[in-house]
Amino acid sequence: MYRTHNCGELNIKNLTAKVQLSGWVHKIRNKGFIIWVDLRDRYGSTQLIFDQDRTSESLINKAKTIGREFVISIKGSVIERKSKNPNISTGEIEILVSELNILNKSLTPPFTIEDESDGGEELRMKYRYLDIRRKPIKENLIFRHKVTQEVRNYLTNINFVEVETPYLIKSTPEGARDFIVPSRMNNGEFYALPQSPQTFKQLLMVAGMDKYFQIVKCFRDEDLRADRQPEFTQIDCEMSFVTQQDVLNTFEGLVRHLFLKIKNIKLNKFDVISYDDAIKKYGTDKPDLRYAMNFIELNEIAKNRDFNVFNNAELIVGFLIKGGNEFTRKDIDNYIDWVKQPQIGAGGLIYLRIQDDGVLKSSVDKFYNQNDLEKWVKAFDGNKGDLIFILSGESEKVRTQLGALRVHVADNLKLAKADTFYPLWVVDFPLLEWDEESESFHAMHHPFTSPKKEQIDLISTNPESVKAQAYDLVLNGNEIGGGSIRIHDKNIQKQMFDCLGFTKEEAEKQFGFLMNAFEYGAPPHGGIAFGLDRLVAVMQGNEIIRDFIAFPKNNSGRDIMIDSPSTVSDEQLKELNLKNIK
Amino acid sequence: MYRTHNCGELNIKNLTAKVQLSGWVHKIRNKGFIIWVDLRDRYGSTQLIFDQDRTSESLINKAKTIGREFVISIKGSVIERKSKNPNISTGEIEILVSELNILNKSLTPPFTIEDESDGGEELRMKYRYLDIRRKPIKENLIFRHKVTQEVRNYLTNINFVEVETPYLIKSTPEGARDFIVPSRMNNGEFYALPQSPQTFKQLLMVAGMDKYFQIVKCFRDEDLRADRQPEFTQIDCEMSFVTQQDVLNTFEGLVRHLFLKIKNIKLNKFDVISYDDAIKKYGTDKPDLRYAMNFIELNEIAKNRDFNVFNNAELIVGFLIKGGNEFTRKDIDNYIDWVKQPQIGAGGLIYLRIQDDGVLKSSVDKFYNQNDLEKWVKAFDGNKGDLIFILSGESEKVRTQLGALRVHVADNLKLAKADTFYPLWVVDFPLLEWDEESESFHAMHHPFTSPKKEQIDLISTNPESVKAQAYDLVLNGNEIGGGSIRIHDKNIQKQMFDCLGFTKEEAEKQFGFLMNAFEYGAPPHGGIAFGLDRLVAVMQGNEIIRDFIAFPKNNSGRDIMIDSPSTVSDEQLKELNLKNIK
Repeated sequence: MYRTHNCGELNIKNLTAKVQLSGWVHKIRNKGFIIWVDLRDRYGSTQLIFDQDRTSESLINKAKTIGREFVISIKGSVIERKSKNPNISTGEIEILVSELNILNKSLTPPFTIEDESDGGEELRMKYRYLDIRRKPIKENLIFRHKVTQEVRNYLTNINFVEVETPYLIKSTPEGARDFIVPSRMNNGEFYALPQSPQTFKQLLMVAGMDKYFQIVKCFRDEDLRADRQPEFTQIDCEMSFVTQQDVLNTFEGLVRHLFLKIKNIKLNKFDVISYDDAIKKYGTDKPDLRYAMNFIELNEIAKNRDFNVFNNAELIVGFLIKGGNEFTRKDIDNYIDWVKQPQIGAGGLIYLRIQDDGVLKSSVDKFYNQNDLEKWVKAFDGNKGDLIFILSGESEKVRTQLGALRVHVADNLKLAKADTFYPLWVVDFPLLEWDEESESFHAMHHPFTSPKKEQIDLISTNPESVKAQAYDLVLNGNEIGGGSIRIHDKNIQKQMFDCLGFTKEEAEKQFGFLMNAFEYGAPPHGGIAFGLDRLVAVMQGNEIIRDFIAFPKNNSGRDIMIDSPSTVSDEQLKELNLKNIK
Repeated sequence: MYRTHNCGELNIKNLTAKVQLSGWVHKIRNKGFIIWVDLRDRYGSTQLIFDQDRTSESLINKAKTIGREFVISIKGSVIERKSKNPNISTGEIEILVSELNILNKSLTPPFTIEDESDGGEELRMKYRYLDIRRKPIKENLIFRHKVTQEVRNYLTNINFVEVETPYLIKSTPEGARDFIVPSRMNNGEFYALPQSPQTFKQLLMVAGMDKYFQIVKCFRDEDLRADRQPEFTQIDCEMSFVTQQDVLNTFEGLVRHLFLKIKNIKLNKFDVISYDDAIKKYGTDKPDLRYAMNFIELNEIAKNRDFNVFNNAELIVGFLIKGGNEFTRKDIDNYIDWVKQPQIGAGGLIYLRIQDDGVLKSSVDKFYNQNDLEKWVKAFDGNKGDLIFILSGESEKVRTQLGALRVHVADNLKLAKADTFYPLWVVDFPLLEWDEESESFHAMHHPFTSPKKEQIDLISTNPESVKAQAYDLVLNGNEIGGGSIRIHDKNIQKQMFDCLGFTKEEAEKQFGFLMNAFEYGAPPHGGIAFGLDRLVAVMQGNEIIRDFIAFPKNNSGRDIMIDSPSTVSDEQLKELNLKNIK
């Protein structure tokens, strides 16, 4: 036996108890005649004491040989501490050690095992098994487990069945790039790892499973951005005989449950906003609504003066910053420089101060008198002390630019509180988007998304105008889930593949099995998928998903702890009839 | 909206209710003036009625256009049935339909959607989405879900944390063959899909996670036997600061919980038997103890007569079949032929009948008198009407042969009841086994398994004699779980790699990260992994794991529904710098 208790559970009620504990040596304070050791495990930390009045010399000498992160097992009795620590549950007691067993030694760790570590990102990843010993990372992994448990319990209680779909599937080149897996038994052929279980969950609906979910790994061979991983986890869900509203209700219920049960936060009923409105009001389809600063368009009132920048613009649009008149001239210059940088690409930034004395002061005072500017203020519902930022230009671009500026201002003003949560549904996405490069339509969501019923005929005549029965769940500026009602009619699915430029043969080769299934009684169905890595990060007010993944990969897709990917033996390649040609 | 109720929930209490149902047309009985339709969904079946006295002509005509497996939605009122069906929960009512909406048509399915289908294996796999509509397969998937939910709840309640380990890992050529995944971003390098998360769960113990589990897909590129899949699911578990007995107690608790909670079966405390005893008594390390027929060795009493087959044999061993004297001469001849077939390879089979009149009759009466045979009977504790089968030869072979015969006899006599469950722990496995082909030692479990503490020194002097702290959980003749206490000492791990013939470089390249981790305070730890596919099949008294996998592959590793694996485009291979050389 290695322990009678863990390192987090003893307290003043256990006084005089004979106990055995095991764990890691977190800290040692050696005063010569007294040695204190903080013994740590997953559950907490307990103070051990060796003291020359009460501990044998040989035991004290043995205690002197142990170092940080040694694994030890001790026996002793629970005594009351002289100087108590009210911050931890074990802070009123300590263990007077009578027996010490060193289970394993440790080299000095390459970084400190503390909440704030001195280890850089690379070092922490290489020694991830030490990084996870740190409380924040450990707690993140436990939090992730709690979320998945609650997801499973909630969905199981409302009759969802978790079904495992295969990982060795078939490559479908559209969309992101697949990881492929050579098949030794089927020469020259390959499996692909799933980018999502999309077609399988639809087949499960055809199979009558009615309500499906799965927490499942998905794979995309993309050039990685800072917040992307080649393998990531989805909460994947699908339901039969449902309308869009049924899906929204079900998963709003799930998210509200998670927040209530795990974080004790009661969320309000989620707002619903159309894609078009989101773009118009916030310049993005994933607006962060923890702060307002919604867009106001000024075409009607700001044109037809001598200011040609506005006169020539397709759109004049801005937002108001409460109390923004406090910005210094330098602050504003910084914002002007910021919007002009190539990543943002605005030509300039117009501002209007509503001074505390009520006087309006703008960067376009030459062209607009106080009377003109009063109208602007009225449009923005401005008050003394506020500031208005305005951009102008081509509509789509200027909205994106202003959307980025809105987030940037909010970041600087720390308007987005980590402990505030503002979820909303964005609905009515366009079905298709035009891809300049390939000069063809792409599915905005995926090729199985159903158009709005009343717009089906427009697919052939005016495809760009067609809206989809697609929806995203946005939380604090992050898309944490997305889904759609699917096409369940074989003919509409064919029309969709047509519209996306699939030849009949391509559609047949890649999705023939799904089209076939649609011949045998496919029910109306729809679903959603949540990005689990992001969901748990956002729930904890954190933006770094890597901190919520036990063994993440770096930006080159490498696991630097195990040093993978790596070369394989010639024999392995030969068995697969493959040759590296570079 | 598509439904107010599902097809399994209406009963006599709902009489007169206006309802809406959706589902699949399971059966149609058309009497001309009355049409009955069985409407089916995941939850059950409800009878619909169209009747010319109460239904409009146009609705009757519409009803006549629907066929088997059409998806329909109906409105109507709940009425009492004339001829009730006591076998289903909805059997007392039917729905008088007032509105019928055909949601999707269906071709005639290639096999019947009934409990006993007329579809062959290939056809059922090609149309798996129709096969899953059949109740037995659907119920198997739901059963599987229930088991995984209970596993997760049980383990979570006792402080286990589910942690996701990566799927894109590193190829380690020993053991089974890896599936490999070319990395586009790291040219010439490959990931491997995990055969198990073994090293990662050990790293999680080094990381202080204390109690880990994961229900996780694993991959092995093996030539498939009938009951193997290239991807399979494990319940993977690991604990720190535990002895072997702690692990056995924990997971005996889990399995007992599963049977009690899901099947309402209270299992007895599990037997524990050593590997050596299992081989000696049953000729296998996974004995089915639903029946006895344990082996009795006869060397002491059957040698030293004129029968040279026995005199020259290393081992004479047999088992007794209660009531086996009822076997005809032909039955026994069939068994003799059976043991002589090349797959079994015995030279012959000796039998001894204890006739109902007490006379002993054997196939070796020439060499043994009644007095001799009485001693045999005594050794087997035989009674009138019993039969004894005896084999002889080289110990290891003869035990295997007799073990196979024992199972074969039990099969023929139907001694293994599908609803009886006899779990047992097999412990004290050998650490190593000698591989004739490679003329080297292999790890019987895996290279991370700890030898018995008191035998560590024998690794260098007498490796074959060393027993491991390894254990299997056997249920009804199936190995459903296996695990071990791991090595946590870097030097012993090195010694083990040595003994397995790893060079220092190979050990470093493949497992350097684990050896490194052992430098930083690895706790004592151990664990177990259950094969989920087999576990759920065995729990349901079924041997065909494919019936418990939503989308299984066939014996060539193909998914014949989606037709995978398949060729990929030249561009895809080019991006990976790979070329097919055959």
